[in-house]
Amino acid sequence: MTDALPPGSVIGILGGGQLGRMLALAAARLGLRCHIFDPDPQAPAAQIAQHSVAVYDDIAALVAFAEAVDVVTYEFENIPTAALDAIESLVLVRPGRNALAVSQDRLTEKTWLADLGLTVAPFADVDGLGGLQQAVAQLGTPAILKTRRFGYDGKGQVRIGPGDPLASVWDAMAGAPSILEGFVDFKREISVIGARGLDGAVACFDPGENLHRDGILHSTTVPAAIPGALATDAILLTGRILNALDYVGVLGVELFVTDAGLVVNEIAPRVHNSGHWTQDACAIDQFEQHIRAVAGWPLGDASRHSNAVMTNLIGDDVADWEALSAKGGLHLYGKAEARPGRKMGHVTRVNPKG
Amino acid sequence: MTDALPPGSVIGILGGGQLGRMLALAAARLGLRCHIFDPDPQAPAAQIAQHSVAVYDDIAALVAFAEAVDVVTYEFENIPTAALDAIESLVLVRPGRNALAVSQDRLTEKTWLADLGLTVAPFADVDGLGGLQQAVAQLGTPAILKTRRFGYDGKGQVRIGPGDPLASVWDAMAGAPSILEGFVDFKREISVIGARGLDGAVACFDPGENLHRDGILHSTTVPAAIPGALATDAILLTGRILNALDYVGVLGVELFVTDAGLVVNEIAPRVHNSGHWTQDACAIDQFEQHIRAVAGWPLGDASRHSNAVMTNLIGDDVADWEALSAKGGLHLYGKAEARPGRKMGHVTRVNPKG
Repeated sequence: MTDALPPGSVIGILGGGQLGRMLALAAARLGLRCHIFDPDPQAPAAQIAQHSVAVYDDIAALVAFAEAVDVVTYEFENIPTAALDAIESLVLVRPGRNALAVSQDRLTEKTWLADLGLTVAPFADVDGLGGLQQAVAQLGTPAILKTRRFGYDGKGQVRIGPGDPLASVWDAMAGAPSILEGFVDFKREISVIGARGLDGAVACFDPGENLHRDGILHSTTVPAAIPGALATDAILLTGRILNALDYVGVLGVELFVTDAGLVVNEIAPRVHNSGHWTQDACAIDQFEQHIRAVAGWPLGDASRHSNAVMTNLIGDDVADWEALSAKGGLHLYGKAEARPGRKMGHVTRVNPKG
Repeated sequence: MTDALPPGSVIGILGGGQLGRMLALAAARLGLRCHIFDPDPQAPAAQIAQHSVAVYDDIAALVAFAEAVDVVTYEFENIPTAALDAIESLVLVRPGRNALAVSQDRLTEKTWLADLGLTVAPFADVDGLGGLQQAVAQLGTPAILKTRRFGYDGKGQVRIGPGDPLASVWDAMAGAPSILEGFVDFKREISVIGARGLDGAVACFDPGENLHRDGILHSTTVPAAIPGALATDAILLTGRILNALDYVGVLGVELFVTDAGLVVNEIAPRVHNSGHWTQDACAIDQFEQHIRAVAGWPLGDASRHSNAVMTNLIGDDVADWEALSAKGGLHLYGKAEARPGRKMGHVTRVNPKG
């Protein structure tokens, strides 16, 4: 016998946003149940799964949740340490603590990636105005100052141009421990969505090419317009990260394509927005792949049957749902209110690989 | 503006078996909610949708259900007339009453199909032993006696060979109004899953070829091994049925391939087991197509990106879930107990169209 959780087992998911929702849909296809932990009573995933409504520092609620499920995974990486401690003493957490420790903190992440021999943007630790001045002198401008923790979709970031007043830049960080990242002259941004099973098997989806607007992912196009050798490099590098972390689950790796090769921008220990195209263009998508991995099942076939362009629907974009539904695979997240900057859904147009 | 139900609307589904479950999963992808009506507290669909637990003649429960949803559809055709009356006075039912009236009764169905100019097996109404003797004299043997209503998966059927004692055959029907169907010398059985939108648009999936074991569907292979012209005939004929019924939703048409052309075996006014392959081999599958139609949305692209073989997992077949999960798209229905003859899941192996 193996360590695979049998059909009917319950996957606990920390976070019930669109990623948790799509994970729960994938789990249901496989005859697995999901139990969502999310403080929001209106969490998108709660429409299709059991739901514990509690905050992430409610230890009693976390304990009850952990006791009700067979394994725990998560849709976001900024899980409080105390929450993880409470859960881990009762039930397996996949991907493991190691992946979270590395990816929760940009400084730890960059250092870990560099130690693995991968190329990252030049960076410096910043914990005050003096440190910022020193870091800017070292790395030059343009550069970008980011909080070490809790940033996403361009939040917690300030771009620094030549001669910008550093005192007001530092004020904008509100004292948060930060990291200065030097400028990377990249031609494209790509990402690889990779998975590693409990048995150590690795399966990566083909690299996609990402476009951002206002700091938020706008579209992912597959295949990326890069030479085959570079695509292979990107996949091998992702496998190296997965193995080094002894990882179980799906991981997203964002990469810059530069004249000098690939530069790792960041990693996310979870299913990733830039992997949504796999739902409509692959035999097994990133969500099912993640569920398979955390349940200890064999990974599925990550091969791609079609080319694809995935476009996010941000805020009012979703008002066009009816016209969009006629044009491709439409995925809506069940969110009632279309606030500016809010991810409401995505649409994926596929066409034969040709 | 159109008649399309906006995201967030609630689709009511009569029946919460595996078909209801897969319909609910498809609806969730589109940001629509589902509300299941099923007497079984353990109904598979109830794991991922709201659930009213009540019997189909509980009019008060049906009224409350109808008032809580925006449209009603169903996963089985044998819905009691009184239940439909109660629901229809409050909310739209799609597909409409016409389709149910035709398909609930084998005699009505065969008569209606023949009136439409389609070829069906020779048949005769049987309501007693005298009628059975007369019908056998007329149609010859082998022949098959079926109850007019409520049969599925080979239930309510008796084969009659030359010289079989008709009195005991009639006794086996327990007085149920029946129909005798003459023998059809067919080479293959195929089926077409067709959809018709609220706007009258028709989209059919490619015909699949079906194999049965013990009266239950065993596998569907796509493409069927038939000439292209015959596949086109099958699709055109399906469109004709859809239009004649002024149909809204997905309909399954089972056909015999004979030397004299296509013979319509039966129609099912719902998503159909022989259309499960569409989940893994088509841009939009039969479940999403049905939800799109009943919600008044544009139909999706029914084109096929891969060849496919769908195999049902009946009873203990599902014990092999782990090995099966390594080999293709595995779909399990969340049923706890694997009783003999019970549909527990299916697996679809795809390969490029090539």
